[in-house]
Amino acid sequence: MQFHHHGYVSGDPRVQPPAGTGIDRPAELPDTMDVLIVGTGPAGMIAAAQLAQFPSVHTRIIDRRPGRLEIGQADGIQARSVETFQAFGFAERITAEAYRITEMAFWKPDPADPSRIVRTARPADDPTGVSEFPHLLVNQARVLDYFAECAANAPTRLRPDYGWEFVRLEVDDAAEYPVSVTLRRIEDAGGAERVVRAKYVVGADGARSKVREAIGCHLAGDQANHAWGVMDVLAVTDFPDIRTKCSIQSEAGNILLIPREGGYLFRMYVDLGEVRPEDHGAVRATTIDQIIARANEILHPYTLDVRDVAWHSVYEVGHRLTDRFDDVLPADLGRRTPRIFITGDACHTHSAKAGQGMNVSMQDGFNIGWKLGHVLDGRSPEALLATYSAERQVVAKELIDFDKQWSTLMAKKPEEFASPTELEDFYVRTAEFPAGFMTQYSPSLIVAEAEHQALATGFPIGKRFKSAPVERVCDGNPVHLGHHARADGRWRIYVFADAARAGEASAVRDFADWLTASPESPLAATPAGLDPDAWFDVKVVYQQDHTGVDIGAVPEAFLPRVGPFELIDYEKVYAADPEHDIFVERGIDRGGAIVVVRPDQYVADVLPLRATDELAAFFRPVLAVSVSA
Amino acid sequence: MQFHHHGYVSGDPRVQPPAGTGIDRPAELPDTMDVLIVGTGPAGMIAAAQLAQFPSVHTRIIDRRPGRLEIGQADGIQARSVETFQAFGFAERITAEAYRITEMAFWKPDPADPSRIVRTARPADDPTGVSEFPHLLVNQARVLDYFAECAANAPTRLRPDYGWEFVRLEVDDAAEYPVSVTLRRIEDAGGAERVVRAKYVVGADGARSKVREAIGCHLAGDQANHAWGVMDVLAVTDFPDIRTKCSIQSEAGNILLIPREGGYLFRMYVDLGEVRPEDHGAVRATTIDQIIARANEILHPYTLDVRDVAWHSVYEVGHRLTDRFDDVLPADLGRRTPRIFITGDACHTHSAKAGQGMNVSMQDGFNIGWKLGHVLDGRSPEALLATYSAERQVVAKELIDFDKQWSTLMAKKPEEFASPTELEDFYVRTAEFPAGFMTQYSPSLIVAEAEHQALATGFPIGKRFKSAPVERVCDGNPVHLGHHARADGRWRIYVFADAARAGEASAVRDFADWLTASPESPLAATPAGLDPDAWFDVKVVYQQDHTGVDIGAVPEAFLPRVGPFELIDYEKVYAADPEHDIFVERGIDRGGAIVVVRPDQYVADVLPLRATDELAAFFRPVLAVSVSA
Repeated sequence: MQFHHHGYVSGDPRVQPPAGTGIDRPAELPDTMDVLIVGTGPAGMIAAAQLAQFPSVHTRIIDRRPGRLEIGQADGIQARSVETFQAFGFAERITAEAYRITEMAFWKPDPADPSRIVRTARPADDPTGVSEFPHLLVNQARVLDYFAECAANAPTRLRPDYGWEFVRLEVDDAAEYPVSVTLRRIEDAGGAERVVRAKYVVGADGARSKVREAIGCHLAGDQANHAWGVMDVLAVTDFPDIRTKCSIQSEAGNILLIPREGGYLFRMYVDLGEVRPEDHGAVRATTIDQIIARANEILHPYTLDVRDVAWHSVYEVGHRLTDRFDDVLPADLGRRTPRIFITGDACHTHSAKAGQGMNVSMQDGFNIGWKLGHVLDGRSPEALLATYSAERQVVAKELIDFDKQWSTLMAKKPEEFASPTELEDFYVRTAEFPAGFMTQYSPSLIVAEAEHQALATGFPIGKRFKSAPVERVCDGNPVHLGHHARADGRWRIYVFADAARAGEASAVRDFADWLTASPESPLAATPAGLDPDAWFDVKVVYQQDHTGVDIGAVPEAFLPRVGPFELIDYEKVYAADPEHDIFVERGIDRGGAIVVVRPDQYVADVLPLRATDELAAFFRPVLAVSVSA
Repeated sequence: MQFHHHGYVSGDPRVQPPAGTGIDRPAELPDTMDVLIVGTGPAGMIAAAQLAQFPSVHTRIIDRRPGRLEIGQADGIQARSVETFQAFGFAERITAEAYRITEMAFWKPDPADPSRIVRTARPADDPTGVSEFPHLLVNQARVLDYFAECAANAPTRLRPDYGWEFVRLEVDDAAEYPVSVTLRRIEDAGGAERVVRAKYVVGADGARSKVREAIGCHLAGDQANHAWGVMDVLAVTDFPDIRTKCSIQSEAGNILLIPREGGYLFRMYVDLGEVRPEDHGAVRATTIDQIIARANEILHPYTLDVRDVAWHSVYEVGHRLTDRFDDVLPADLGRRTPRIFITGDACHTHSAKAGQGMNVSMQDGFNIGWKLGHVLDGRSPEALLATYSAERQVVAKELIDFDKQWSTLMAKKPEEFASPTELEDFYVRTAEFPAGFMTQYSPSLIVAEAEHQALATGFPIGKRFKSAPVERVCDGNPVHLGHHARADGRWRIYVFADAARAGEASAVRDFADWLTASPESPLAATPAGLDPDAWFDVKVVYQQDHTGVDIGAVPEAFLPRVGPFELIDYEKVYAADPEHDIFVERGIDRGGAIVVVRPDQYVADVLPLRATDELAAFFRPVLAVSVSA
């Protein structure tokens, strides 16, 4: 955490000084705004928290609810999400209050007496060390609280406007605020309507999204839904794995058991079977007592004495997806840029059982958040916005394919399995997917072709930047390189040095000089008056350990002068940790490499240190505001 | 973190439900209270945060200041303090914003040109792994903020009463509230006085303590003070170790350099030499420009361009100590129990350079806090309070002896050293002391004789309980056994099992049954209506790994039923981690052992599993309220 460089900060350094639109931010919803986000769920709130970092951008986020969510449905937090929370500054706090999954138990009918269940396997949750971040379970309401805190502490002091319902919208491309949105105040008995205008609208308004309707998108997919009785309960039981995530398959049906934060609460998804449209919602009449009775049958010979029900529902869902995530019709692709975006459940619905929904939704919101910020801040052309739908629709499709497999397996009867360990084998084999690390974006305006991938095999282009340990030179601290990256909207350029020592003539020194001095350097786009690292966070990693790097000989490009006192930022200069050499762990060429990382942590390009022309060429269209603005 | 067992908690689980005196706590300072703490520094605030956990105890804490401290003098946070913060629930948050010391650099005159300094050594800060917690630097104001948050979130909703000055006190042992304290409202121009009455008073009012005066204590020690110019500054320099803790000795004098939180700020202690009484405070007239000029001379050939001064002072201090920390005169020892206590700088002053002051002061406050809580809550006799002065005065004496050595070494001229590495050798050799782990309390009412120490050599009786990794059985999570201990005022009984498996006839099962059922068990003292673990937190550690422990066969003593729903608390049952076997790492006998730990984390006793009589005998006087109340 870096602070004090604008003068001494006495209080919580997480509270950033207000700036730009945060200085006189209207407490009430104004008539015009840059971005209107509809819905304060995970997708909407992360987008808001990201946009809140751009002082020039006025963002509002509305919700029908009168205030914060009290209890939410989602609770699965994959490691990729915790990695994301790290960038937003609350990973350690939410981890401290969450349940942590380190293994999963599988229970099946006892072959000796199939009326009784027995534990058959207990595989580790992340046996291959996919991530240094944990896999958590915690109620969605707390995730939203933390994003709300981030947004409120950001320079723009963004706070949700509760009690507003989205009604409809119209677009007039010629207007300064092209999207006219009709809202209804929820507290008004008469349901008074009001029109506000925005440059862009993000629909994060859930599976019944009205924003989706307004742009003529439709969820398409399965006709059949699968129904589950879900309950968050406090109970006394003799089932020994009640604090372990379990798949329980018995002759009486299936349960997915999800222990929850706090040491006592747990969730059970009790299988209620496939539901055909002709059911006409009858399954929804299933009572909590029926769900509890069913759970007791499945758990036999163990019993469940429910003492308190925190929440319950009948959860009925199919696998459905929209074919686009914005308002550009296929015929207009490449001819206009989008004004309206949909995210999260508005675009993709699926079972809750793989614990993916909230996670994928948050990555939707992170993705659109920085892109809107860059366009509205004048850093990038509007063409950047077309990459949102192109990138995220593919991810949603992969999610639905995965979830179909997983939920089909989970709903199988014991005798239907091809092998006795089919379910747990699938779980272990596919661990990288549910952990959130399989996403790989295709080449685009912001993802290069993998021409030089061999220079850094551990940083696949299009996948998220996987952190590794390094030593910070200025203080010798062992740190994780990627954990220093904040969700501050900046591009990151990681410069892995060649073997020369700092100060010696070398490719890395030449590159550093070019970065600082060349008019072709992407850094040259940074407006005068801002800190030199305001748009690009450039870090160097030397091959020596920290005692082998003379910080006095490190090029200026890696020691920028920041803030009103023009102080040296020393936290850009790193060294290899001899015990976990990042050059070895991430397959980085000893001749050095440049790794370009997007504001949402995805690797955009890998280049040789001498490839200044290619680096300039990569960023030229990304920064070409004058061409299309 | 455990919650939800009283029903679903929607918001931040760190905010405990209000209880007892927290339900209708008066916003304004009332006329009577159980405990009055004078001073909101580190000693006072930790005592308040600890007492805030006792719903039956009404504690007030006053300060002359009109509000929170904006910038404090102390900044060194030893690992023992971070361990303590863990128990108060904010270790990870303060670590995230603090500077972390991992090594220290030593600079001396270059033998080739003694007018220039050169780096001569760079030893690791904790080469032997004294603690799993880091050594930090962060402003005292932030430490106080976190304790204030703990106290406000505690059941008693304790908040400081600012703007009150302590004037004098009188004691009438016969009264219900024996201590009458005269206060003055700071905001009143006339300085109106007011009398409040308390059962106990804690003086945490600093080196010029009026509470100390009121009980006739005096600081005794050196006649001579040593003076240092201290400055917290933002500067540009070419000194390469500006972000590393440094001892700099040059021909022009000495500097202790302390990098600070946030990446830019640093503190320098610039040596101004010994001050004799006849100086009459002339040294205090040293200006910030003189301090900066002196720093530049010492740093030669490097330069320091100070751009902003956050704080500066001339720091003049001797080594002084009071001979008692309470109001019981030597002649009355054992004949009356104390009513008034002094803590922190009120009892001991010394140089700031070993970074000890705030840390030792916090342990003073932690020590008196739980003891007052136990006496006022009716758990323990007043005799417990006599152990405060007895324990902490010795620690203060050790601190002053250590600091004399360290500050004498730091002030030496290069040519005065016995060997060229005398200073850094001392630093490395004594690492356990400044880390805060050398304290070992002598046998007393609450520390047993070390008769059975051989059963657990890694838990020395009288020293703090050093955590080690274990596996939690219910969920297979790898956890640190000691990190689960909250500063909740409870005694802890760690039961290390013999080799039998859970459920088999064994010494551990017999002990568990005795704990639950015997009228001689210390747990029998817990009042009816409270949770069975309200006074004693009993945990078991089995020798098998977590898959080898059948939680269904674990004795009830280790699975208490808690809260209104009588839910099972599963977080008392642990297993050895095969990769870091706690039985090996802490030298625990394979026949098992009982380790009794005080509420302030010090080991009180080590016993064999069969020693129920000895355990009962240990606790009998500790719990013997009726005898002396």
